[in-house]
Amino acid sequence: MTWKISNSELSQQDLLNMESIFALGNGYLGVRGNFEEGYGADMTSIRGTYLNAFHDVIEIPYGEKLFAFPDTQQKLVNNIDAQTILIYLGDEEEPFRLDQGTITAHERNLHMDKGYAERMVQWRSPAGKEIKLTFRRLVSFTRRELFAIHVRMEPVNYNGPVRVVSTVNGKVTNYTNANDPRVGAGHAERMTVVDTGIQGGIGYIVDETMASKLRAACAAQHNLDVDADVQLEDGAGQITCTATFSLTQPVSLTKYNIYTDNLRHGEAIVEQGLKLQETLRSVSFEDLLAEQAKYLQDYWKSADVIIENDAQLQEGIRFNLFQLLQSAGRDEHSNISAKGLSGEGYEGHYFWDTEIYMFPVFLMTQPDIARQLLLYRYSALDQARARAREMGHKQGALFPWRTIAGTECSSFFPSGTAQYHISADIAYSYIQYYLAEQDKGFLLSYGAEVLIETARLWAEIGHYYNGAFHIDEVTGPDEYTCCVNNNYYTNVMAKHNLKWAAKSCAILRDYNAAGFKALCVRLGVTEEEMTTWSKAADAMLLPYDEALGINPQDDTFLRKAVWDFDNTPKEKYPLLLHYHPLTIYRYQVCKQADTVLAHFLLEDEQSEETIKRSYDYYEGITTHDSSLSSCIFSIMASKIGNMEKAYRYFIETARLDLDNTHGNTKDGLHMANMGGTWMSIVYGFAGMRLKESGLSLTPAIPQDWQKYAFRLNFRGRLIGVSIDRENVTLELIEGEAIEMKLYNEEVRLEPGQMVKRSLL
Amino acid sequence: MTWKISNSELSQQDLLNMESIFALGNGYLGVRGNFEEGYGADMTSIRGTYLNAFHDVIEIPYGEKLFAFPDTQQKLVNNIDAQTILIYLGDEEEPFRLDQGTITAHERNLHMDKGYAERMVQWRSPAGKEIKLTFRRLVSFTRRELFAIHVRMEPVNYNGPVRVVSTVNGKVTNYTNANDPRVGAGHAERMTVVDTGIQGGIGYIVDETMASKLRAACAAQHNLDVDADVQLEDGAGQITCTATFSLTQPVSLTKYNIYTDNLRHGEAIVEQGLKLQETLRSVSFEDLLAEQAKYLQDYWKSADVIIENDAQLQEGIRFNLFQLLQSAGRDEHSNISAKGLSGEGYEGHYFWDTEIYMFPVFLMTQPDIARQLLLYRYSALDQARARAREMGHKQGALFPWRTIAGTECSSFFPSGTAQYHISADIAYSYIQYYLAEQDKGFLLSYGAEVLIETARLWAEIGHYYNGAFHIDEVTGPDEYTCCVNNNYYTNVMAKHNLKWAAKSCAILRDYNAAGFKALCVRLGVTEEEMTTWSKAADAMLLPYDEALGINPQDDTFLRKAVWDFDNTPKEKYPLLLHYHPLTIYRYQVCKQADTVLAHFLLEDEQSEETIKRSYDYYEGITTHDSSLSSCIFSIMASKIGNMEKAYRYFIETARLDLDNTHGNTKDGLHMANMGGTWMSIVYGFAGMRLKESGLSLTPAIPQDWQKYAFRLNFRGRLIGVSIDRENVTLELIEGEAIEMKLYNEEVRLEPGQMVKRSLL
Repeated sequence: MTWKISNSELSQQDLLNMESIFALGNGYLGVRGNFEEGYGADMTSIRGTYLNAFHDVIEIPYGEKLFAFPDTQQKLVNNIDAQTILIYLGDEEEPFRLDQGTITAHERNLHMDKGYAERMVQWRSPAGKEIKLTFRRLVSFTRRELFAIHVRMEPVNYNGPVRVVSTVNGKVTNYTNANDPRVGAGHAERMTVVDTGIQGGIGYIVDETMASKLRAACAAQHNLDVDADVQLEDGAGQITCTATFSLTQPVSLTKYNIYTDNLRHGEAIVEQGLKLQETLRSVSFEDLLAEQAKYLQDYWKSADVIIENDAQLQEGIRFNLFQLLQSAGRDEHSNISAKGLSGEGYEGHYFWDTEIYMFPVFLMTQPDIARQLLLYRYSALDQARARAREMGHKQGALFPWRTIAGTECSSFFPSGTAQYHISADIAYSYIQYYLAEQDKGFLLSYGAEVLIETARLWAEIGHYYNGAFHIDEVTGPDEYTCCVNNNYYTNVMAKHNLKWAAKSCAILRDYNAAGFKALCVRLGVTEEEMTTWSKAADAMLLPYDEALGINPQDDTFLRKAVWDFDNTPKEKYPLLLHYHPLTIYRYQVCKQADTVLAHFLLEDEQSEETIKRSYDYYEGITTHDSSLSSCIFSIMASKIGNMEKAYRYFIETARLDLDNTHGNTKDGLHMANMGGTWMSIVYGFAGMRLKESGLSLTPAIPQDWQKYAFRLNFRGRLIGVSIDRENVTLELIEGEAIEMKLYNEEVRLEPGQMVKRSLL
Repeated sequence: MTWKISNSELSQQDLLNMESIFALGNGYLGVRGNFEEGYGADMTSIRGTYLNAFHDVIEIPYGEKLFAFPDTQQKLVNNIDAQTILIYLGDEEEPFRLDQGTITAHERNLHMDKGYAERMVQWRSPAGKEIKLTFRRLVSFTRRELFAIHVRMEPVNYNGPVRVVSTVNGKVTNYTNANDPRVGAGHAERMTVVDTGIQGGIGYIVDETMASKLRAACAAQHNLDVDADVQLEDGAGQITCTATFSLTQPVSLTKYNIYTDNLRHGEAIVEQGLKLQETLRSVSFEDLLAEQAKYLQDYWKSADVIIENDAQLQEGIRFNLFQLLQSAGRDEHSNISAKGLSGEGYEGHYFWDTEIYMFPVFLMTQPDIARQLLLYRYSALDQARARAREMGHKQGALFPWRTIAGTECSSFFPSGTAQYHISADIAYSYIQYYLAEQDKGFLLSYGAEVLIETARLWAEIGHYYNGAFHIDEVTGPDEYTCCVNNNYYTNVMAKHNLKWAAKSCAILRDYNAAGFKALCVRLGVTEEEMTTWSKAADAMLLPYDEALGINPQDDTFLRKAVWDFDNTPKEKYPLLLHYHPLTIYRYQVCKQADTVLAHFLLEDEQSEETIKRSYDYYEGITTHDSSLSSCIFSIMASKIGNMEKAYRYFIETARLDLDNTHGNTKDGLHMANMGGTWMSIVYGFAGMRLKESGLSLTPAIPQDWQKYAFRLNFRGRLIGVSIDRENVTLELIEGEAIEMKLYNEEVRLEPGQMVKRSLL
């Protein structure tokens, strides 16, 4: 049934990638899939434990620093390491290590239906002692602070003394790589141990970050199901639990690690950790597994996508959905970082990836998480206002290109701060949320304020030229073309933003006149100002090239020379690692979908023909060097009816990390791409759209498939969608009757009834 | 006769500025005008001694480093300090210090006709001992390694023991300021003392830079004209000469400091220094003064500009010409840094300032120095080729935006590396040199190769669009608008470059067919390639706006909003220190002359009307936040006949540093602006031009002036030009008869004859 990721490779490269693939997390706490016993001395491992949003502040160095370049950035820190469990056999104390002795059996699985990872090793020591070890671990979805490890030790040919040494280590460092702009360049050591102790059989460590002075604690208790000599010690920056016993029958050790931090748990983080440990006294690992399975059952009920008869793709989409669930922050401090909680790539920063590539998945499967992602941005609105002022803008809010705590962390503005579109992307996600949930209370409390402040940004930086509203000197999504005028994507998204700022005001005036008035007073919004937004939206320049019949990416894009693809060897990709940005900017070459993405997000702004011609044009000059690209090309290939291409691009997204096709899975999973896989199916093959007119589908099916199915959570309903080679079947699984569109035709879904239509 | 700069202010700010103003140098060695005895503990001083091109290599830090961003840069290091001479009075050893006791007289002068600085102080110690001290110092133009100080000590009311302690200190650091992008941000300590010693009464110190491992030595000998107990010691990183004597009549101490380095003196720098000291054994300070005066007499003979009846401006132009002479490198290692040898601003880097703002002065007054400046660039041609390859260009040479040793030192490419025009600017200076000297041998040996390799750069990065040759993604001189397509300045300069690459080939084919053929073989130049240069030059797009009748700065410049000057308070200038670059780029606002500069350098490319309208347009949006701007606006105001404006801009250049109008003279003098003063007079008021048709003048005179005069060194002749309110008078002072144009009319200058014409 393809609920299991299995990989038992032990080469250096595989192990590094598997550390990301087997990462466990719950949106708050993430642990990479490292081996408890460690590795050989000559092996590189990125041993990582992360608390979402738990960061240090580091100075950004510049050769030449200009005005309003950020002084500091945030960096996700590698947190206290509770993964280590060492096992020594016999009086000689032979250590269990995979680089020595003989591995007689080895299997590793990630159980996506149950939410845990397991590793089974049968191993013979150099001296011939053979044992069988089964490690299982989980990061609990229902007890967010908990990371638990269960080790079962079985004798094979060896009976005798065993010493188990389990540690919780506060002396941790971050991974760095100075030559890859996608990984942090320096600042490895960010945490220092400020306290250790033991209380009631529970050891704890408190670490503090160097500059931000955030504190995290890990409290650990151990449970051994055999009589043993157990010693618990603290010292030298770690907690050590040593258990010595005689292995004559299977023995199990459970290690409960509770992570607390002063972002979420107040200042008494040790006390909070100890209290949480108390609640675990009578909870077995099997109990935890049962809780976890129940949670995942609920998740998959609304989120699962079924692809019949293709185990590889089925595995891919489930893996991606599982990792999304593991990565999404559930509080106002946290969001989804570019690598989730699976690695340190992009330093744990949150980008527009959330709003455009991941938010839609949650919106249509787990709207509570979607709402929480919006609230994170709302909590950073004051910082976005301050950033706009710092940039010299008299009004509006400019959201940071990359951040954890809300301030701009991008040191290279041409493909960072210049991507003003992020403010429109955030606005877009608020609008989508409104369209999905029609939650006017939320719009009044949060959404309208975000829409108004982002609209003000466009009003501030745009200007009229020959009657059209222009937006100059911004960078669109395509980072191979920077600092341009009238980027189609930015302009059309800003138009939508401006239009909806005004529209929200109209909606709220009807919904709650007093509340709306209070909002206007608080923000200083006048009727006159609302009119300027509508006027700018109506007058927005959306570049169009008459000769080609396409939307140019920006004012001058089509006048540039086309990149010499014929003479660019394969090893020169991704271009950003082999060419100076100026040289890349000089040509028509796209790293990723830009205008094509705009045509997906706002398809009603252009004719079908323009969209199709644009797709063909940009496809020819896009390298897909960004993992944000293929899914959009897949969706749009579906839209223009080229299912073969749609399928090819979809496949590239589905197993990007499982097959390490971008070569950097070791630094963490490509979360946006994972959202993109779901989007390629739901928005792409099934043609789902969410507009003012409601929810609609225009399903098709790839040539190679017999059947696929998914579910949509929409306004309190759970809708099942199933598509085979002949028919599409809709089923209202939960909730009251509702209307939606199928192939542009209104259909009404009634409880307990199926709606079946032939595929068009 | 206004040959003297006097300033006796003693405030903190004045002293810092005067350190730059009173700097002495000879193109190789430069010493800031610091006080020998030092300052009070609470005073900031930038104590500096520099050897042109003597640098360390430092890593450039980046928050996000992209491909081909330079890893390292060069930085001019503050060198061994030989300025210190301390004087102690009486048995109590009261130190002579201006922050204590009473100054009864104080005068400070820079003698520009004689090439030395002097400082006279009459001072009464706290205990009442009064003496008179006269410090004179020079950096020799004829003995490039020599910095000499002469101190005359005279009793006023004090007769008694005096102890003089003169040191040469190897423990030196650079000045840093993290908040000003125009000054180095870090890396203060770059030199370590690796050797000290004493030999034959001469003490020496050898310092080595930390990373580049360059070595410099200072050898010092002291000469006292009174019987004294003299002790010379080395230790603790310095040489100390202590002389104790009885002051009963005037006593003089001469300190001869010889600087050698392993860039110019081979590895035996100490031996070279000691040998040079030997040649000074019988040379008195008065002898040195006489040599220096002779050298300057020769210089002023060809370079002096006379402005009658305006002492302030007379002082300004002479000061600027004097400092240019002091700053220009005379060997293949060195050029003219942005601050000359007077300070550490811009880290001692060479920019296009040399070719466009300073080279013309030398070309027409000291052609040997001009030639040397060209040879410096020629010596860096291989590095420019390598940089072009690194940037992804298959052919051509890209000169670095800022450099000392020839590699790119700019870490912020939008206003650094993107200024590809520097390659055309260097080509332009070679062309100007050819036009002035018609030296075909030089063209064959050096010039053609530079022209060919720079032309290849344009051929490589340009492309045809609708039949016109476009150059995309470059930054012109105006750093408030970056990374644009078809910058008028860049395109027209590239056109000139391409045209002259082809023309040089034609000239050399006639001049020396065999030599030319060898050159073509060496560089792989074919007839076909030459044709592509001419074709690209002919097809070069020179943007023109029909509606305004001006040349737009680039393809989209005129479509941007105009900066809101009305609501920008004075304290927000210069804009670069108060606004993020993106915000500045978004508007029509110029830091400096860009299109207007192109119209000066290549005036025949546009009609007089277009040039005039462009001037008016750009003047309205230019902030002159760069010191490279006013002189060009002055020249072009002269050209369009607005003498009042020309005069106003000229005045801004003439005393920029003397009056510290940009507020940062302490970091060093604005060398390019100094060249611009001369250019404002000669190219501006007198309308001098140098073209294929020869030398020409179209003189005018500012309203406030009665008369001005200057000289031109042209093809071996020295031509005197004198302009009063009625007439212009030309005189051939040296050399054979020659023809030139005056008001578009051919005139022939004969030895000993004057040519007089009425002003038009």
